[in-house]
Amino acid sequence: MENRNKVFIATSLDGFIADKKGGIEWLDIFPAINQVDTGYGAFMAQIDALLMGRNTFETVCSFDIEWPYDKPVFVLSNTLKQIPQPLQDKAKLVSGPLQKVLEKIHQQGYHRLYIDGGKTIQSFLKEDLIDEMIITTIPFVLGGGIPLFSELPNPLLFECISSQTFLGKIVQSHFVRHRKN
Amino acid sequence: MENRNKVFIATSLDGFIADKKGGIEWLDIFPAINQVDTGYGAFMAQIDALLMGRNTFETVCSFDIEWPYDKPVFVLSNTLKQIPQPLQDKAKLVSGPLQKVLEKIHQQGYHRLYIDGGKTIQSFLKEDLIDEMIITTIPFVLGGGIPLFSELPNPLLFECISSQTFLGKIVQSHFVRHRKN
Repeated sequence: MENRNKVFIATSLDGFIADKKGGIEWLDIFPAINQVDTGYGAFMAQIDALLMGRNTFETVCSFDIEWPYDKPVFVLSNTLKQIPQPLQDKAKLVSGPLQKVLEKIHQQGYHRLYIDGGKTIQSFLKEDLIDEMIITTIPFVLGGGIPLFSELPNPLLFECISSQTFLGKIVQSHFVRHRKN
Repeated sequence: MENRNKVFIATSLDGFIADKKGGIEWLDIFPAINQVDTGYGAFMAQIDALLMGRNTFETVCSFDIEWPYDKPVFVLSNTLKQIPQPLQDKAKLVSGPLQKVLEKIHQQGYHRLYIDGGKTIQSFLKEDLIDEMIITTIPFVLGGGIPLFSELPNPLLFECISSQTFLGKIVQSHFVRHRKN
């Protein structure tokens, strides 16, 4: 099976995933969006497992909700010692060089991965390991915050294969990595 | 007549208007786009004049082409002493606080303005003076360069009223400032 690493994330118009204080309340500026199918279900149906960074994992844990994933979650961290007891059947800790981490995950039968978390996505982009990105733009110009993208050794070319607006307010674009064959 | 300040600009997927070396060749990665109507003509037909920064003005002057604008151009600069002789009937120098600059331009009958140039757009956003932005995303993650957006004192909310792809590669989104009435 082909290995694919995919991103599904929301950013501000100026490319931030969290504001200057680390907050994400601005993501909910148009609450009507919660009544709209923005493709998250269809995306999740097409992935085998999630790979996220420690920050994202801890953020999800901090939400006062049930564990939201029905697919295996791999938590990429070189500092976290163990997954908290109640989640040990939901999430597994992985560490080391990305290529090795991916090999181990693929060997377990998970090939289509949802890569989540700003730093994790940045690490993957640095090694040109992202194949697709579905980016939902919440049209705030925040003027500062935690950026989705960071410094890269080389530019990476994608193609925007589709784009749609929701509520006449929010835009979602689907980018696929353009690789020379 | 209502005053409107509009932006029509291309950026990379990570929000840069020029690469790490200041280059813009990457804007032409998909040459077939030159055969496509991306709305520039329609946009220009709806503006009365351009207001651009010195950098943009000098970049346009450096292109080995005829003067490309058939509308009046105002060059915003506090350092430029005068417009070069051959362009003195095409472009006028303006300086001072933005609100005063705009007043003077409006008094001359130009109300719908094309605001161009990274620093100029940033100055306008800082004072919440941008009403619309048509942003064409060339799907390179450059990993560094000259950003379109910069630090802001307060977040600004827009709405994405429409979005379209060209060639299945490039995406253009139309953002309109969402102001409370």
